[in-house]
Amino acid sequence: MDKLLETFKALKQKNLSIDLTRGKPHSDQLDLSNNLMTQAVDPIGENGVDLRNYGEPIGIIEARKLGADILDSKIDLTIAGEQSSYLLMTQLLLGRFLFGLDDDPWKNDKEPAFLCAVPGFDRHFATLEGLGLKMHTVNLCSSGIDLDDLNKKLSKYPNIKGLICVPRHSNPSGEVFSDENITNLLKITKEYNSSFINLFDHAYLIHDFDETRVQTPIPLLADGLGALDNVAVFTSFSKVTFGGGGMAFLTTGEKNFKLIERVRNMMVICPDKINQRRHVNFFKNKSNVLEHMKKHASLVKPKFELVNKKLSNLSSEVGEYTNPTGGYFVTFYSKKPIAKRIVALCAEAGLMLTPAGSTYPYGNDPNDSVLRIAPTYIDIDELDVAMDIFVLSAQIAHSEI
Amino acid sequence: MDKLLETFKALKQKNLSIDLTRGKPHSDQLDLSNNLMTQAVDPIGENGVDLRNYGEPIGIIEARKLGADILDSKIDLTIAGEQSSYLLMTQLLLGRFLFGLDDDPWKNDKEPAFLCAVPGFDRHFATLEGLGLKMHTVNLCSSGIDLDDLNKKLSKYPNIKGLICVPRHSNPSGEVFSDENITNLLKITKEYNSSFINLFDHAYLIHDFDETRVQTPIPLLADGLGALDNVAVFTSFSKVTFGGGGMAFLTTGEKNFKLIERVRNMMVICPDKINQRRHVNFFKNKSNVLEHMKKHASLVKPKFELVNKKLSNLSSEVGEYTNPTGGYFVTFYSKKPIAKRIVALCAEAGLMLTPAGSTYPYGNDPNDSVLRIAPTYIDIDELDVAMDIFVLSAQIAHSEI
Repeated sequence: MDKLLETFKALKQKNLSIDLTRGKPHSDQLDLSNNLMTQAVDPIGENGVDLRNYGEPIGIIEARKLGADILDSKIDLTIAGEQSSYLLMTQLLLGRFLFGLDDDPWKNDKEPAFLCAVPGFDRHFATLEGLGLKMHTVNLCSSGIDLDDLNKKLSKYPNIKGLICVPRHSNPSGEVFSDENITNLLKITKEYNSSFINLFDHAYLIHDFDETRVQTPIPLLADGLGALDNVAVFTSFSKVTFGGGGMAFLTTGEKNFKLIERVRNMMVICPDKINQRRHVNFFKNKSNVLEHMKKHASLVKPKFELVNKKLSNLSSEVGEYTNPTGGYFVTFYSKKPIAKRIVALCAEAGLMLTPAGSTYPYGNDPNDSVLRIAPTYIDIDELDVAMDIFVLSAQIAHSEI
Repeated sequence: MDKLLETFKALKQKNLSIDLTRGKPHSDQLDLSNNLMTQAVDPIGENGVDLRNYGEPIGIIEARKLGADILDSKIDLTIAGEQSSYLLMTQLLLGRFLFGLDDDPWKNDKEPAFLCAVPGFDRHFATLEGLGLKMHTVNLCSSGIDLDDLNKKLSKYPNIKGLICVPRHSNPSGEVFSDENITNLLKITKEYNSSFINLFDHAYLIHDFDETRVQTPIPLLADGLGALDNVAVFTSFSKVTFGGGGMAFLTTGEKNFKLIERVRNMMVICPDKINQRRHVNFFKNKSNVLEHMKKHASLVKPKFELVNKKLSNLSSEVGEYTNPTGGYFVTFYSKKPIAKRIVALCAEAGLMLTPAGSTYPYGNDPNDSVLRIAPTYIDIDELDVAMDIFVLSAQIAHSEI
């Protein structure tokens, strides 16, 4: 312990300032899309639309086609929206909240609730909480949603309207849902409530950096079960081209689709069609998008390997950690309730981590044990130091109690 | 009458298809900004931010400065948002609806209501109705809001939360509010309710094409009255550069500002900073924006002159019409309740008009008399024919009853 504290003291004296909080691409990843900034765009779109004027409220057809190719969805049920899939998600939630699927708006309900797969993404929780939806947790397991826990929660809590999760490279714990798991999830939730909505945030749909479980596209699984209106699948180009500068896609069933069109009509005239066209010009087709993603993979993989190597220095008594095959995060689970303490120690040494608890609704991690590590944004040399601080902080915190 | 019908019959046989429904720029106006489509952007913003990554949720500082210059607002109370001021407006309304200015969310109220200046803009009505706000009308007059009618409505209806209007070149009737009118509006509404919110949609703030009444900027008037949180002023570049492809600005007081930041945080990560920077590069400063708007003015003015000349052929017994000095619309007021009939007759002859009633909440024009004419989008030759159809239809409809 004395030796640990000595090393820690030496690290503190370096006055470091390293940010591991957010899943942001590194500038070398952004460089892959630099041509987007210099590329001229012709003003007329594929179907003769003047891209410079109002119109095409659910996106230009060529962007919707590309989105449908990526999501494996029907073009006429695919929206190409603004630069954030988060906005499309909120628009759909607002549609259900204000108007309802069959004129049954959630806002008229006594205490509408939502299930959140945990650990999960704090922005999802912020939106649900903002809409006044009561959040309950449902555990993840290696194949996806823990169906026993799902059944338990559905029995326990009345009036659950939907569930939110990240079905591939889950944020932050990296699970990749199996077809069987998704199928059962859809069956169980539809039986619970025929208008149950499963929000699948496919932020990392094409973000593998290692061999990953093959998934049948969710729109196909849902269509096969007659459950298209029980799913909404989102993705965006924010981690493909530019963070907040790409475009986003959504697919769902016909009823939800009409609802989101209605909500969009009360808040947005149309997306930026020039930017949509610029992206279509840049990629042309899905196959080029996937080639582009291989370049991202080769840039991020060494960072995940480094994190894994560093964490392997920790005794399994201190904690366990994930070894994802894609996505943007590694999750560390401490054995003792020391997540907050690890964050505080790291901060002392100049390393910012996502606050402990942020992977749970209401910031409430029941065991104070889950930490999210986002290794992509910083240089690998910095990451090396950051992980030393992390490992050291975990060891110290573990020894303290 | 027989001669009118004969001319009308001849027009019908031309199988025309002309669209006067929406206030869209003509392609020659869009051409003014074509350099935006070919212009390269440097990835690093003014304060060192990487424009290609996430961040700057209320806009890059150089865009916020430009917006503050245009709105005459404080930079730290100015948001540079996505491509639609409509989105910023909805975000603010959602903030008041879900959270409230002082923890008094409208959603908890029995029957929250809003005043809409009439005639007005159908999209405003759609948003308010979508949020479940009861809409009442307040009349416009030559100096702005009819303050007698305002006082009457405030006495008559309880629980009015705010008012929405277009204070310069009002959509569609073209009023330009006087300083005195705006000042009195702010005083009266603040006295009615200290958290009353006046939404000023300044869509046509810099869209004069003739000499126009000088207005003291609303943020300055409001600040002088200690009423910054009683106003929200919006504008966008949709009719400056590209429809739905520009950027939007909002200014308000500190409390509303925090609220809109909170709402944005639950639905958008950040605006498209590349597009913001591209616009800042293109214009550099407000003075260049105003020069650019002079070019728009010279393109649209002949169309408004033509509409005026054509409408002058109508006897004042048939109706009256506005003669705006800016903006995108001319309003026709029929003396008899024949607006719907005029729209139907125009449609028969291949001319699409905005539906009668759409300038009133719930589509309810009490006198069936107000029609909105949007002359900018089509070629002037087409406009010539369109106005012949309009005048003829008005004469026929007038003669019928």
